[in-house]
This record gives sequence, structure tokens and C-alpha cells, in this order.
Amino acid sequence: MVPTDGSMVRPISRGLTLRAFIIWCILLPFIGISSGAKTRHFKWEVEYMYWSPDCIEHVVMGINGQFPGPTIRAKAGDTVVVELTNKLSTEGVVIHWHGIRQLGTPWADGTAFISQCAINSGETFHYRFKVDRAGTYFYHGHLGMQRSAGLYGSLIVDVAEGEKEPFHYDGEFNLLLSDWWHKSVHEQEVGLSSNPFRWIGEPQSLLINGRGQYNCSLAAQYSNTTSSQCKFRGSEQCAPQILHVRPNKTYRLRVASSTALASLNLAIGNHKMVVVEADGNYLQPFAVNDLDIYSGESYSVLITTDQDPSKNYWLSIGVRGRLPATPPGLTILNYQPISASKFPTSPPPVTPRWNDYDHSKTFSKSIFALMGSPKPPKNYNRRITLLNTQNKIDGFTKWAINNVSLALPPTPYLGSIKYGLRNAFDQKSPPENFPDNYDVMRPPINPNSTTGSGVYMFGLNTTVDVILQNANALDDSVSEIHPWHLHGHDFWVLGYGEGKFSAKDEKKLNFKNPPLRNTAVIFPYGWTALRYVADNPGVWAFHCHIEPHLHMGMGVVFAEGVHHVKSIPNEALTCGLTAKFLNKKG
Amino acid sequence: MVPTDGSMVRPISRGLTLRAFIIWCILLPFIGISSGAKTRHFKWEVEYMYWSPDCIEHVVMGINGQFPGPTIRAKAGDTVVVELTNKLSTEGVVIHWHGIRQLGTPWADGTAFISQCAINSGETFHYRFKVDRAGTYFYHGHLGMQRSAGLYGSLIVDVAEGEKEPFHYDGEFNLLLSDWWHKSVHEQEVGLSSNPFRWIGEPQSLLINGRGQYNCSLAAQYSNTTSSQCKFRGSEQCAPQILHVRPNKTYRLRVASSTALASLNLAIGNHKMVVVEADGNYLQPFAVNDLDIYSGESYSVLITTDQDPSKNYWLSIGVRGRLPATPPGLTILNYQPISASKFPTSPPPVTPRWNDYDHSKTFSKSIFALMGSPKPPKNYNRRITLLNTQNKIDGFTKWAINNVSLALPPTPYLGSIKYGLRNAFDQKSPPENFPDNYDVMRPPINPNSTTGSGVYMFGLNTTVDVILQNANALDDSVSEIHPWHLHGHDFWVLGYGEGKFSAKDEKKLNFKNPPLRNTAVIFPYGWTALRYVADNPGVWAFHCHIEPHLHMGMGVVFAEGVHHVKSIPNEALTCGLTAKFLNKKG
Repeated sequence: MVPTDGSMVRPISRGLTLRAFIIWCILLPFIGISSGAKTRHFKWEVEYMYWSPDCIEHVVMGINGQFPGPTIRAKAGDTVVVELTNKLSTEGVVIHWHGIRQLGTPWADGTAFISQCAINSGETFHYRFKVDRAGTYFYHGHLGMQRSAGLYGSLIVDVAEGEKEPFHYDGEFNLLLSDWWHKSVHEQEVGLSSNPFRWIGEPQSLLINGRGQYNCSLAAQYSNTTSSQCKFRGSEQCAPQILHVRPNKTYRLRVASSTALASLNLAIGNHKMVVVEADGNYLQPFAVNDLDIYSGESYSVLITTDQDPSKNYWLSIGVRGRLPATPPGLTILNYQPISASKFPTSPPPVTPRWNDYDHSKTFSKSIFALMGSPKPPKNYNRRITLLNTQNKIDGFTKWAINNVSLALPPTPYLGSIKYGLRNAFDQKSPPENFPDNYDVMRPPINPNSTTGSGVYMFGLNTTVDVILQNANALDDSVSEIHPWHLHGHDFWVLGYGEGKFSAKDEKKLNFKNPPLRNTAVIFPYGWTALRYVADNPGVWAFHCHIEPHLHMGMGVVFAEGVHHVKSIPNEALTCGLTAKFLNKKG
Repeated sequence: MVPTDGSMVRPISRGLTLRAFIIWCILLPFIGISSGAKTRHFKWEVEYMYWSPDCIEHVVMGINGQFPGPTIRAKAGDTVVVELTNKLSTEGVVIHWHGIRQLGTPWADGTAFISQCAINSGETFHYRFKVDRAGTYFYHGHLGMQRSAGLYGSLIVDVAEGEKEPFHYDGEFNLLLSDWWHKSVHEQEVGLSSNPFRWIGEPQSLLINGRGQYNCSLAAQYSNTTSSQCKFRGSEQCAPQILHVRPNKTYRLRVASSTALASLNLAIGNHKMVVVEADGNYLQPFAVNDLDIYSGESYSVLITTDQDPSKNYWLSIGVRGRLPATPPGLTILNYQPISASKFPTSPPPVTPRWNDYDHSKTFSKSIFALMGSPKPPKNYNRRITLLNTQNKIDGFTKWAINNVSLALPPTPYLGSIKYGLRNAFDQKSPPENFPDNYDVMRPPINPNSTTGSGVYMFGLNTTVDVILQNANALDDSVSEIHPWHLHGHDFWVLGYGEGKFSAKDEKKLNFKNPPLRNTAVIFPYGWTALRYVADNPGVWAFHCHIEPHLHMGMGVVFAEGVHHVKSIPNEALTCGLTAKFLNKKG
């Protein structure tokens, strides 16, 4: 029997009743709102709790007793205020608002050791930022591996009052994807930091909106595994959220990936998807049978419910880019009024072969900005090339960028740069390139690898090109996918290529309609070229969004115009050298 | 085969060679030491690591890669400086120096939320305190349940140069006892804070100097269990430390208990022990066959190696006061020159029956101060009675004192009281007594139980009497042992009694030679009467030393003369309201 749905996901009505409209018009002058923009307040408490994301009970990091955390829903132009109280007994906490550029509020970016001090146990921090642009976003922890522990949720920004999306839909669903381990995050971290190194392995389960099934399968009848058929009453924490649709309508699926590790592919039986948004930016619509989505990315796709309305259909997610050892994540697209418990007549869509990189590249290279989107400046002012290597440093396994593995300092950069506290981090700028003769096709030969905390400093409004250069990892013939995420900005993805980036690749770059993103992948042994304008005063992490890779040092720190940053709240600065500085300064 | 010893514990030579003495005399004027007192510097890093305390690998909190942490050895009058760096990725940390009274240095007591802010990840705190008195002490974490995670070690203070102990011995051994769980401390904490409540259960293993055996037994040949005989090469992390002795000598065994839960009993086959020290205070020597030791206590016992020198003997520890589900902790007393791998000819000593409380009371009531020890003031200025109850508060299981379950505030008291920050904690003083008609023999009927953060404030130099009153827990006919530990002071243990303390019990109190201790137990359904002089300006925790009980609120906070406390280091204050206050104050 197909599960009945525990927590129903019904399309959100986009209409406004006449009555609500009248009340709105009466109240408007009194609640001090101009141009429809609102301040939306949230009071959150972060706490560990028992939860069964994949039907196996574990300790999970939740917000207000929920996993995933509550969905934030706002309109473009609104101000979001989250009063975040740390109810963890011994751990600090921060929350990063992934995809929100934090224009003018770099202290609200929620990156521990970069934009703020971790919020101490028992204390409250006030995140206040404008969601300036409609789109599909999410939020997550950004201290240690607290994202992997379950600290994430959705952040959906609708178009401003009176504005319209450049596409039509009758309803929408929100799918936040993640991966889940049975080994505690604390133990995962210790393994990664140990010598000998212990890798976290592949996830036990894939989750859709925090729900997966480890000890059973929704589609056992179709699989040749020994999994038993899941039987749900519907109220279980791991019961899938069913997507209830009506025939012959168009639905927007907002899909975001907060995975710790897994690159995913999403497909819906019989239904094509038209991709229309990525990371909060509109795309030139294109149709696909399946969607590749890497950690840190978000997409909106439109589906039309034009299939046989007497049937239900699978929605399936599976692992790409690493030899999969994790069963697919599943739920059901239910054509109402037929029962959600009626089984689809075909097996779930099969995820493309994990190492079919051509498939992935074809998808990535199909993404173009919607006509009329902002175009990149014609020329760059500064170009840096970032070589991604896996290294051994003092016997520990690390990832390094141009031979430097990022080790965050105890004093957050935003405060230490603003106040000129030079002892807070390595003052030497990290390398902007790597030796010409470096062979990206072979394991690294770089005995000078170090850990470091240096910063790439950019003049305000500099146009920066970043060439992300992939290479062979420590083992022969291994090169991994890394989705790189930039804080505080979007970048234009100018192109992808094979091997080492060279002068001949310049002409392949796309300056006509490159998509704006905040996350872009580098394929094995390949390069990815990005351009962005350093126009947002602050200090911004740029890193591989695979959480254990970041934990192993796979990131860099960008900064621009920090002297333009005004009035960093004290609550962001009460640690390390900034705490001492403030005491002296008074 | 009896294990050969991995890390040998040899008696420490107490002689000083002539050469060392000459070097000492030459160097003395140059190193600025007067009266022999030294400053002893330690640089420590706290970090999680893989370790096998009981032969099963787990994540353990270690110091400088060691578990237990390094032993501090100093002489009375020395100053100990520990530069503690927090290398944990997400957690704060503090270390409490258990038994050190911190005269004049209340900010170095190492209690999170009481004496200092937790040390942030990546930061360093400087503990600096005088060890004013010889004795057997230990140190441990005092944030969340980090002690249970393995954050503890020994602190041994020898008599000052030229001073003598009031007893003779030829060598000494140091035994730090603890208990060990296979469930992570993070998960234990979540269970304790969950509704429904989940108890941590009994420990899997007992450890002697961080070493136990879960999957085998040192004495399998004598036991009727199915445990297999341990086979050690000697280098294993869980191989027992053998106590190597010579015949016809006297040895001092320093025994301290850092258990999270277990009350223990220690015995050595064929050997009587003469108890001479408790918690850093000399006792009227008395002989026992076995030693009860509760969490938070320390003892020195003398043994004479006057038994058959052709044999080895067991040293065994076992659980008291709770239905035991944990095998005994074992090691070997090895009469050299015979081999340590020769088995004792008899089975290990049998721990007294767990609920033979008469045995325990007989032991506790045999403890008297050594003649000439400081005597308590004849009268008290203020007496408070602290009723220990288990309660349900909003459905959560808690321990409460006079109906208030301690919930520590985010701003440490020492700073908030010193600077008059009244919003930092409940300003109402907690109750000093409980209703006359409360029936301590029955489960609690206390609908007004609350959590709270109030402080018992004492005028400086007040003589305080504390009557610790035990009661029935939530279940019928259950009353547990609680070892109460006072920070910043020793107290005189004036007496123990049955049932509810009343006027008729006054005359039973011992004012003649009560022992000074920092930890005293209350027996099931009984009371314990303590007296101390509130003569140490600061804020001091007084709590059940069972770590999960403290986590559930079983503690109170005492304060005296805080306005006399001078110059609290800023590094102790960079959190909560004190951080804000310092910023304003400058």
C-alpha cells in the first residue's frame, strides 16, 4: 500500500480573498508598512532532540522542536528578523542564510569565525536582513558540521506585492533535499580530523523535507533488493510528504539541496520538468527528464500534470558523482482525486549512472540566464585561479586551495579586518595561482602544503574572475566533484572545461547569457570559470559546499571594502580579539 | 596470564640527589623563587580523539592527546598556571580544579556560567591559582557533561619544601577512578533533557586511571561469567596499570573518584588499608578492609606489603548504592621481584552488597579529623536546609532543591553579581527550607516545582550550616545516594542521620573532631549536616556530583563578598550581559 501522507503538502493558494484584501487596506496605514514590505519576526530555539528522519531514531539538531527547521516565507523587499536562542548545552551555533546576499548586513551572514562569533550556549543573537530578491533559498548551520546534524530549513521569497514571476503556475511544492548518516556528526568530525584519517562514508539515507526510509522501501515491490515494503499510518516522522496535484495544472517545484556530501539527481515518473530558476535567478526555461542538483544549489522547475490522471507517479532522488551506496529517496506525485495510497504502475525513475559525467555536463551547460538578466562586466580587474587538491599535512588528510588548507581563526574576520587587528589571522595574502607545471591529472606533489587563514582582499567594485581548477586527489585516477558556494554575491558562470584552464579556453567563455548563481560545480579533472563584482562590503566565505570537505580546509575567504561596513552589532563580536578590542575601546 | 603492564606505575622516588640539590641552590636566586614556591606552567589543548578506555573504541575528550589528561604535580604554596586552548570544533570548555579552594581567585574555579564564560572554540584561557595545601585532588570539565566525556585528570599537591606529611610511606600510587558509557555524552544529555525522560543507565565499565576491560576480564578464570580472559601485550590503551611494590614497605595509594554516577568500593586482596587523608585534609588514621568512595571524593590510604611475597594480589573496584550492572574494575598489586604476570591465587575481593548501607554508614562515620585539625566555629550564623527531591516540571524529569531545579543563566554569576547586572539571574533568593509537613518517605507532592537561577547570598565570614535532607524520589520506595560537592571551601561534616532532621538531632552533631571535606554524601532517606565559613569572596557551586543529576538541576549557588573580588580577568567575562557591560564600560 502506498503511504497516506502524514504531513500533507498541498499547493499554496496564490489568491487573495476580497475580505483579506479589505482588512489589509484598512490595517496598512496603522502597521507602518510602506510599499508592501514587511518585517517578519521569528523566535527560534536550537536544540538537540530525538527524531527519526529515516525511521531510525537519532539525535538531531532541531529548531523549535522541528526537523527540518521552520520554513521562512517572505516577499521580496521584506526584512527578516530571526531571534535565535542557543539551547544547546555545550555548543555554539550560527545560521547562514544561503543565497541571501546580505547587502549592507555582512554581520548577518551567519558564518562562524568569518561574519560573527558563534552564539554561546544560552544566548540569543538577532539576525536582521533584507530578502531583496524573490527565489528559492534555504538556511543552515555554519559551525563545525552542524548542518549535517540537521540544522537546516527552507527560505522562500515570493515576488514583491504587485510583482509577477516570469512564468505561470497553479500551485507549488517545496522540496528540501538532504542526506543522512547514522554515525553522529561529532564522531564524523573526529574521524576527519584524525590521523589515520577516517572518511565518513556514504550516507545511509536520502531525505526529502527531512523524511527518508532506511529500514524499508516505499517501492519494495519494484526493487530486487531485500527491503521490505514500508507501512505507514502517516503520522510517522519518516513518512513521506505526498505531493497532491490536480490533473492538467502547472506546478512549481522548488528544489534545494542541503546535502552534506551527495550530489543528487531528481526525476518524476512520466513528467518532464522545465527549469526556470536557479539560486534565486531566473533562467532561460529548458526542459529535462531529470535534474542534477549539487549541495548548495536550488532550482525551480515547472511540471504539468498532463499524464494519465488515473495513476500516481514516483518522485525519486538518487546519488550522482560518487559510487552510490544509498537507496534512492522517494515520494509520490498523487493525482487527486485518486487515492494517494494507490501505487504507481511503474517502478521509480532510475538515476543516471553515477559516473555519467557527460549527462551532468550536458545539464550544467544547458543553464542560461533569462533574457534581460544582468550581464557580466566585459572585463575583469583581477583573476585568481584556485587549484583544488587533496593533501597530506603533518600526516593529516586535508583539502587545499593553491596549497593552503583553510583553518579559520578564533576571531571572526569581519571584526578583525574592520578594526585592524592584525594578529587575528595570517596577514599574507594566499597565492593567486599555482605553478604552471603542476599536473592536474596526477596525485599532488606539493610538500609545502600548509594550513592558513589568509584572506583574498579585493578593492570595492573590483570585477573578479575566479578559475576553479580541479585536479587529481591523493589516490591515482580519482578526481571528485566539488560544488563551490560564494557568500554575499552571485557570480556569472562563464563556462566549464576539461583539463587545465589555459589561454585557449578564454574564447569558450560565455559573456552573452551566463547564468547568475551562488553555487557552481567543478567536474572531475575540469575547470569552471566564474566572474563576479566585489561590490558588497564584508568578508565572504567561498568554499566547497560538501561539509566534510570544508571541515578539511576546502575553502577560501574573500573580503572587500570592509572599512565601509558600519556598526557591526556587538553581539557579533564578543569573542577572540574583537572582544578584547571592544573592552579597551569601550 | 596476568597482563604485563603497559604503562607502568612505579612508586615515585621521594629522595633528592645531592647533585640536583646543588643545581637547585645555584639556580634559586636566578629564577626568582622565594621560600621554595614555584610557578608551574602547563600548556594544554582539549580535543576529541579516538581512544579505547575499556578496549572498545570511542570518541573521548582528551588533553594533549592523552586520556585521562596529564597529571599535575605541585608542592603546597606553588602557583599553577594552565594555558588551556579549546581545540573542539563547536563546543565551549572549562576545567574545574576539584578541591582547590581558589582563595582569592574565584574566576579560576572553572565552572561554566558560574565563575567564567565557557572558553570558545579556538580560544585560550589562563587558569592561575595557588595550590595552598598538600593533598590528593583532581580536575575535570564543568560544562554540560564533558566530565563524562573523559575530561579529567589528577592534581597532586605534595607538602611544601621542608615540610613533612604526618605519616610515613616508601612510595605512592595514584588511582583516578571513573565510570564509562558506550553511548555518547551528547546523546546521554539529550535523553536526560527529553520528555519522555531517558535515563543513561549503568556504566558499561569502571576505569582505573582511564583503563578498564569491557570485552574481557582480567580475572575470567575466577568468575562464573562468560567473559573471556584478557590477553594484553601491555601497550593497549585499556591494559591495566600494574602496581609494582616491594615486600615489607608502606605505600600511599591516592584514590580519587571522578565517576559520572557510580559510588565505588575499593579493596585489595589480603591487604588492610589505613585511611589517612580525605579531600586534602588529614584524618585520624583508621584501618579498613575496603574503602567506599563517592564521586567527587578523594582519599589517601596506606598499605603495608606484609603479605606472602611469592604472590600477587588483586585491587578491585565495584559499584555501591545502585543495583550494579557493571563488572568490577581490576588491576594487580605485584610483589616484585616476582612477575606481574603471575596470577593471584584467590579471586578478586568481592564488593559489599550494593544496598548494604550500614556498611557504608559505618565507613563514613569512622572518618574524623586528625588531632590538631581546625575545628568548626561553635555556633552558626545562618542555617539552611536543602531538601533533595526528584520532580516533574512541565513533564520533564528534574532534581530540585527546596522545589527549585537549578537552571544556570547564560551570564556567569561572578561577573553579574560583581557588576550588579540584575537581569542576569533570578534576584529572588531561593527557599532556605521546606514545609514542615513534607513527608520525606513518600514520592514528592510538590506542584510548585520550578526551574530557577537564584543565589544564596551570604555575608562574608558568615558561619553557615547546611542540612542536606534526602527524600523519596519519584518512584515509591526509592531514595538515592547523592554526594554533594562544595566549591571554594571545605566544610565540616557534623553528622549523618536517618529520616527528617529535627531538633532532637542537634545533640548528635560532632563538634569535637568532624572531618573537613569538600564532598559529603547523603544516604537514602537520611540527612547530613555540614558547617562552613563563607570566607572566600566569590560565587560557588554546591551540587550533587553525579553529573546527570547536576544536569537535571541538582545544585544550588552560594555567593559571599563578591564586591571584595578584584579584577576578574576579562577573558572570564566575554559572554552574556558581562560582555555587553564591559563594552559599555570600556
